[in-house]
Amino acid sequence: MPAANAKALLFDVFGTVVDWRGTVAREGEAWGRRLGLAIDDWPAFAEAWRREGYLAGIARVRRGELPWQDVDALHGRQLDKMLAERGLADLPEAEVARFNRVWHRLEPWPDVLAGLARLKRGYVIAPLSNGNFALLTNLGKHAALPWDCVLACDLFGHYKPDPEVYQGAARLLGLAPGECLMVAAHTNDLLGARAAGLGTAFVERPLEWGAGSPPEPSPPVPFDRRARDFLDLAGQLGT
Amino acid sequence: MPAANAKALLFDVFGTVVDWRGTVAREGEAWGRRLGLAIDDWPAFAEAWRREGYLAGIARVRRGELPWQDVDALHGRQLDKMLAERGLADLPEAEVARFNRVWHRLEPWPDVLAGLARLKRGYVIAPLSNGNFALLTNLGKHAALPWDCVLACDLFGHYKPDPEVYQGAARLLGLAPGECLMVAAHTNDLLGARAAGLGTAFVERPLEWGAGSPPEPSPPVPFDRRARDFLDLAGQLGT
Repeated sequence: MPAANAKALLFDVFGTVVDWRGTVAREGEAWGRRLGLAIDDWPAFAEAWRREGYLAGIARVRRGELPWQDVDALHGRQLDKMLAERGLADLPEAEVARFNRVWHRLEPWPDVLAGLARLKRGYVIAPLSNGNFALLTNLGKHAALPWDCVLACDLFGHYKPDPEVYQGAARLLGLAPGECLMVAAHTNDLLGARAAGLGTAFVERPLEWGAGSPPEPSPPVPFDRRARDFLDLAGQLGT
Repeated sequence: MPAANAKALLFDVFGTVVDWRGTVAREGEAWGRRLGLAIDDWPAFAEAWRREGYLAGIARVRRGELPWQDVDALHGRQLDKMLAERGLADLPEAEVARFNRVWHRLEPWPDVLAGLARLKRGYVIAPLSNGNFALLTNLGKHAALPWDCVLACDLFGHYKPDPEVYQGAARLLGLAPGECLMVAAHTNDLLGARAAGLGTAFVERPLEWGAGSPPEPSPPVPFDRRARDFLDLAGQLGT
């Protein structure tokens, strides 16, 4: 069985551990109501923020089109742009900065707390995310995620799926790459982890992009594990 | 009140959070009995290991006399030396490697778990130790320390009391140095933290060097807080 000797489980966070789309939409709706903002489709706002700020921003950093910057900066840059496009460039700076940190306050999927509590019995558990260290620390505290430590891309100066991130995480934990199992709902993350020598577990998160959007396509290649959620993964791993 | 705006509490670990002397002596006694080793004073063995391996080793790295190496390596080097001096150079390698990792299995002082649980309610809590990331992660898991994240000197390539360690920790947390409070039983650590702009809390650990040894001398300068233990600190901080 591949990954049978895993000692640490490393978790992708946005979409795999937490429901970014639902949390940002809900907090956005409340924020918009309070400030009387003319934004009526907050789920669409959340999705555009994620696609254009985070995903496109990381891609530009990885291609060398933007200097290294963390996800707080990428989110903030895109939020400013999206507010300006809607005629809201003059909102108080502290309001915008606070809303930009909604990504530090994301809520976990329903199975996560119980699943992590079980997985923690048998493994070192840690996030390994493109989020920055402060964001992941604050998010873990907000959501009471029982991490043993926090691993973040700014420790390595690289974004996933660069191999430096996966190999750097294993090295910090004092483990060989093959003693780490990457857990993610995204095929490209798992392909990067596998190329770096880690074991891989695909977790289904069909609602990440909303009930109306297609789920992540089935992985084109077999991974070491495939689980419906973290409780299923805990069962498979015997914890 | 200085440090009144602290958002994170950073803890020295060896001696402040855990009783290295008691744990190493107890585990050494059991190990020596099992292997029939002719070592009769394990508390003295633990103290020499700490002084000559860890404290002297870090000092040599900081002076540039040794290349950068982590505490696992410094401990291992000294353990090999001490065993050889006692005619025990031929012990099985796996036995020696496992005993070297006793520093990953240290036990907390009696007030620590209850104290950290209270302090965690109001602050980000993290170790900030000269121990390496893997050691601190394993130690936290072993002792069920409820850290929000792990901060270790190998993230910065410097040992305390170099300012890079304290300032690097604040930067990773997204905080100003003055928003961090360093908690330690050692004056030199707190002097380093204060020079780097952090708040400081001195905690008494009179038994660190054993009941027969004098405690850490009273700090020669005032720190922001002075507490008998972590419960007293929690009371002072209102958590």
